Amino acid sequence: MTSPIPPAILDTLRRADRVLLACHVNPDGDALGSLLALRRALSDLGKTVVSYVEGPVPQHYGFLPGIGEVATELPALDGFSAAMALDCGDELRLGRQHQTLLTVHPFLVVDHHLEHRSFGDFSWVDASRSSTGEMIYELILALGAPLAKESAFCLYAAIASDTGSFRYPSTTAQAFRIAQDLMLAGVEPAVVSGELFDNYTVSRLKLLQLVLATLELAADQRIAIIEATPEMFAATGTTPADTEHFISFPRALASVQVAVFIRQSEEGVVSVSLRSKGELDVARVAAGLGGGGHRNAAGVRIRNQTLAQVRRTLVAQLTELVAR
Amino acid sequence: MTSPIPPAILDTLRRADRVLLACHVNPDGDALGSLLALRRALSDLGKTVVSYVEGPVPQHYGFLPGIGEVATELPALDGFSAAMALDCGDELRLGRQHQTLLTVHPFLVVDHHLEHRSFGDFSWVDASRSSTGEMIYELILALGAPLAKESAFCLYAAIASDTGSFRYPSTTAQAFRIAQDLMLAGVEPAVVSGELFDNYTVSRLKLLQLVLATLELAADQRIAIIEATPEMFAATGTTPADTEHFISFPRALASVQVAVFIRQSEEGVVSVSLRSKGELDVARVAAGLGGGGHRNAAGVRIRNQTLAQVRRTLVAQLTELVAR
Repeated sequence: MTSPIPPAILDTLRRADRVLLACHVNPDGDALGSLLALRRALSDLGKTVVSYVEGPVPQHYGFLPGIGEVATELPALDGFSAAMALDCGDELRLGRQHQTLLTVHPFLVVDHHLEHRSFGDFSWVDASRSSTGEMIYELILALGAPLAKESAFCLYAAIASDTGSFRYPSTTAQAFRIAQDLMLAGVEPAVVSGELFDNYTVSRLKLLQLVLATLELAADQRIAIIEATPEMFAATGTTPADTEHFISFPRALASVQVAVFIRQSEEGVVSVSLRSKGELDVARVAAGLGGGGHRNAAGVRIRNQTLAQVRRTLVAQLTELVAR
Repeated sequence: MTSPIPPAILDTLRRADRVLLACHVNPDGDALGSLLALRRALSDLGKTVVSYVEGPVPQHYGFLPGIGEVATELPALDGFSAAMALDCGDELRLGRQHQTLLTVHPFLVVDHHLEHRSFGDFSWVDASRSSTGEMIYELILALGAPLAKESAFCLYAAIASDTGSFRYPSTTAQAFRIAQDLMLAGVEPAVVSGELFDNYTVSRLKLLQLVLATLELAADQRIAIIEATPEMFAATGTTPADTEHFISFPRALASVQVAVFIRQSEEGVVSVSLRSKGELDVARVAAGLGGGGHRNAAGVRIRNQTLAQVRRTLVAQLTELVAR
């Protein structure tokens, strides 16, 4: 069951004439798409809206309409009749200045994270939603604001981003219904998806090829390991940021229960990403080495060991884990 | 505008008590998902249904419920009160025995290919649809058949397969609406997507690595080409069926407007897959070489030319296309 919009949130937004909207640091497609869509809707209702995110907006979200007007430095906080945090699981996600932001009242919160820790004055938190974008779409309709084509585009980006284009378990029937509405409002899914998912550079694809060539299996193909070395980054002109999602390849192997991605990006530091399926807990393995994470997705940075040393340690510990 | 189901097709199916269903050779998720869903619906209406595809069913569609009952050898053709070809752009797509199959009357055709060449007695062809699955869903509803959970699963696989999980330009608002209905009928999108998109074997991942190593760019990085050779299949113990979706890698390059995957699977036959973005029409390029498809996704099989010859022809024609 989805939870309805709390009346206090609707009332506050209806009455407010100057609103501050903020999303989480290192924002993703859901955070930014939701922020921009709501900003446009409130503006269309005649309100003055300031949107803000602490620190830089990742360059590859530059395609979102209106992104250029998001402030990345804290604006003066006087004169706002309301503020809202979007897609923030706790107040710390607002950034270092969260306490200052929270001096604006009433402070509204719209979020869909399962482990949400309550903050602000009035919250609408619904973990049954695929995305904050799904909630903002409903909020815009409930406010009676027109749905501009640009807002539909941003909301589609929000939903597609948080559901991996409807492939993750977070996908909801409601997300499909809204996607249909957004298409009817003029969104071309392929255009948005192209910007979100087809943004490989040639260098990155070459790096992927080199990394896949390192694939090795252990423990009867239950463990798969790939590696990236400083030489690979140098040869392809890439950085560790270009390896995002690479671990999904060893993870996609049907036989594999634990996928490992080891990369050495700088002298003396080896980063490890671990992914497991089902009940296998890689967070404990990571924690044992000084890292952390969730049961099925964890990581650790290890200093003063070679990639080969880290690899040996991991294979030994993970072989024990999958043998249990 | 979508075109409605021709009454002759509904009448024929309503009256028929023994029906033969066939889809195209080297079947994909849309062909098989549509076939299996309609088979189940007609069976539930009390009809005897034989489903058929010439030659092997790719192993990785083994997850589709009912797949084991699809005949891959031509059944005896006497006693059928109707036959239907699903997802076939022309009669040759039914395989070498197409003329024999077409001796069954009335012969119905349901297809969504843009360059459909008419065959059979009664056709429902609608290129505005994302997939044949979208049409079969409507047909099942119009027949008043119950929508079994297994059929919903197969139809979701059909639509997700032909739209790349709603990422291709073929995605329609109707596809989203149906996906919502299918979820409400019990489909878990992440389960189907996992089977469709995350079902790598170790051999297949090794093949991917070899294929990615062949990446070459032309026309100022607007064309990307990858290749698979018989040697690669032999070295990794894979078959051409293992290359499905490989073309999404060159297609994912931001600069690329046309992605090309050339593979030689048997002596003297070279298969080409083409993907384009936006308005660029690769179906015409494919048609010029004897193939077909949609504007943004087309293909052709070429005999008696080497991989290198095919590559030269394509690069020349596509360079002209992207230069326009």
